Amino acid sequence: LNVTIIGLGLVGGSLGLALKAAQGHVTVAGWDQSPATVKQAHELGAIERIALSLPEAVHDADIVIVATPVLAVHTIFKEIASHLKQGAIVTDVASTKAQVVAWAQDLLPPTVTFVGGHPMAGSEQHGIANARADLVRGAVYCLTPLPSTPSDILAKLESLIISIGARPLRIPAATHDAYVAAVSHVPFLLSTALVQLTTSDEHWPSMRQVAATGYRDMTRLASGDPAMHCDICLTNAEAIRPWLYTMAQLLEELAGHLDDPAYLHALFDTARQRREDWLREP
Amino acid sequence: LNVTIIGLGLVGGSLGLALKAAQGHVTVAGWDQSPATVKQAHELGAIERIALSLPEAVHDADIVIVATPVLAVHTIFKEIASHLKQGAIVTDVASTKAQVVAWAQDLLPPTVTFVGGHPMAGSEQHGIANARADLVRGAVYCLTPLPSTPSDILAKLESLIISIGARPLRIPAATHDAYVAAVSHVPFLLSTALVQLTTSDEHWPSMRQVAATGYRDMTRLASGDPAMHCDICLTNAEAIRPWLYTMAQLLEELAGHLDDPAYLHALFDTARQRREDWLREP
Repeated sequence: LNVTIIGLGLVGGSLGLALKAAQGHVTVAGWDQSPATVKQAHELGAIERIALSLPEAVHDADIVIVATPVLAVHTIFKEIASHLKQGAIVTDVASTKAQVVAWAQDLLPPTVTFVGGHPMAGSEQHGIANARADLVRGAVYCLTPLPSTPSDILAKLESLIISIGARPLRIPAATHDAYVAAVSHVPFLLSTALVQLTTSDEHWPSMRQVAATGYRDMTRLASGDPAMHCDICLTNAEAIRPWLYTMAQLLEELAGHLDDPAYLHALFDTARQRREDWLREP
Repeated sequence: LNVTIIGLGLVGGSLGLALKAAQGHVTVAGWDQSPATVKQAHELGAIERIALSLPEAVHDADIVIVATPVLAVHTIFKEIASHLKQGAIVTDVASTKAQVVAWAQDLLPPTVTFVGGHPMAGSEQHGIANARADLVRGAVYCLTPLPSTPSDILAKLESLIISIGARPLRIPAATHDAYVAAVSHVPFLLSTALVQLTTSDEHWPSMRQVAATGYRDMTRLASGDPAMHCDICLTNAEAIRPWLYTMAQLLEELAGHLDDPAYLHALFDTARQRREDWLREP
């Protein structure tokens, strides 16, 4: 099985390492816009074959994994469309899916099948240097098939995902985008807004001294790649926006109840219990 | 030096273990409203002497550390006031300081000196079972002296703090409360509100499947002790409230710019840089 990974950052590189570690009958080729990244991916063992161009990268690939930031997927689709092997499977790993699925329908030929993908794993660290074989191990790996997607192709992708220790989950693209807006994109934006809130204050130069582990952890996501998160917001604005307005309402309501012990205790106790429930059985 | 710790939870227990590990000429006695907790603290080596009552706990103590939740400090002050040794130093570890300082002035006799304290270390885990000798190691340890606080007493407390590897920081109580509202209390409330936002949604039963490490980490603080956080809000509502309103504004502003790449990129890039600056030099 020839697999080609386009975009060798944290996720692309980690998938390469995971496929190699899985020791299936898989040969992994890779391409990245940065030659230095391709070289590093090869040295780390994330890819076995270096592709010198996009056409060469995909022409004999059975499965093409596009692992670039969301907006770059559009360009990649245009550039690979006429070079894809008949019957090839194309997938991606982007954090938003409806837009990517629409681009695939517009740009990819009917001789190939596209299935959107999104491994629910990542890190505020990015780049090939942070890639690791176990990044997606144990993680849910969303696939967003269309009703018309042939089930044998879906099964093939799912067995590849299982072979690297991840857990495939079939979910419609629009549903995926609405859910990750709440559990992934809003958390990033909250983390960023907390940094904005605190560091913009005139007392930050003194205040920073009393910021401790709680602050560090709540702002971790804000260290994520700005370009990647920019793409995410631009392609998922409609889903994210209502969550942000609701969050703003919740905070204002909370601000009005800061001296109401019954309200606070019920809120804190419920939140704690629900999180513990989720931790036990995600 | 006789040190008595009142309240043997995570912080009280950890201070006991740290004082023991520091191997100074310090004898640590302890009291807790739960006899089982006192027993466990003794078994873990967090205290050397079990006090059977509050009067007995404090009558020969040179330094009394009240390590209960904020609101309980009021009760403890009332109960120990008439039993404190002349010249004793009383301190606490509560997350809000102005209220505690006011109670100390009202309730403690002029023959002792109170200095508010707050080690900037903690965990969403609580209780003596999670206590560890290195909890406050490397952490900033706030002290909130009054202008009238004798400097030799402050120096004595500071050397005790240094002996357990923490870093004393003198800061007025009101300033402390304003700062920790932003970098500690608001992060907890954001974490809790994020759990509320997501788990109250009708789709949570499906959505929970795609929640991953970002969600887990951004909600970690929400697993903290509800009673402790309730006390924190009740005693620091005035300082917390404006931060919450500002945060709500920032989120609404952000919601209005989700399709504005220049705005998003500047926001994300600045937040990342400022956090990295803080991580390098807190």
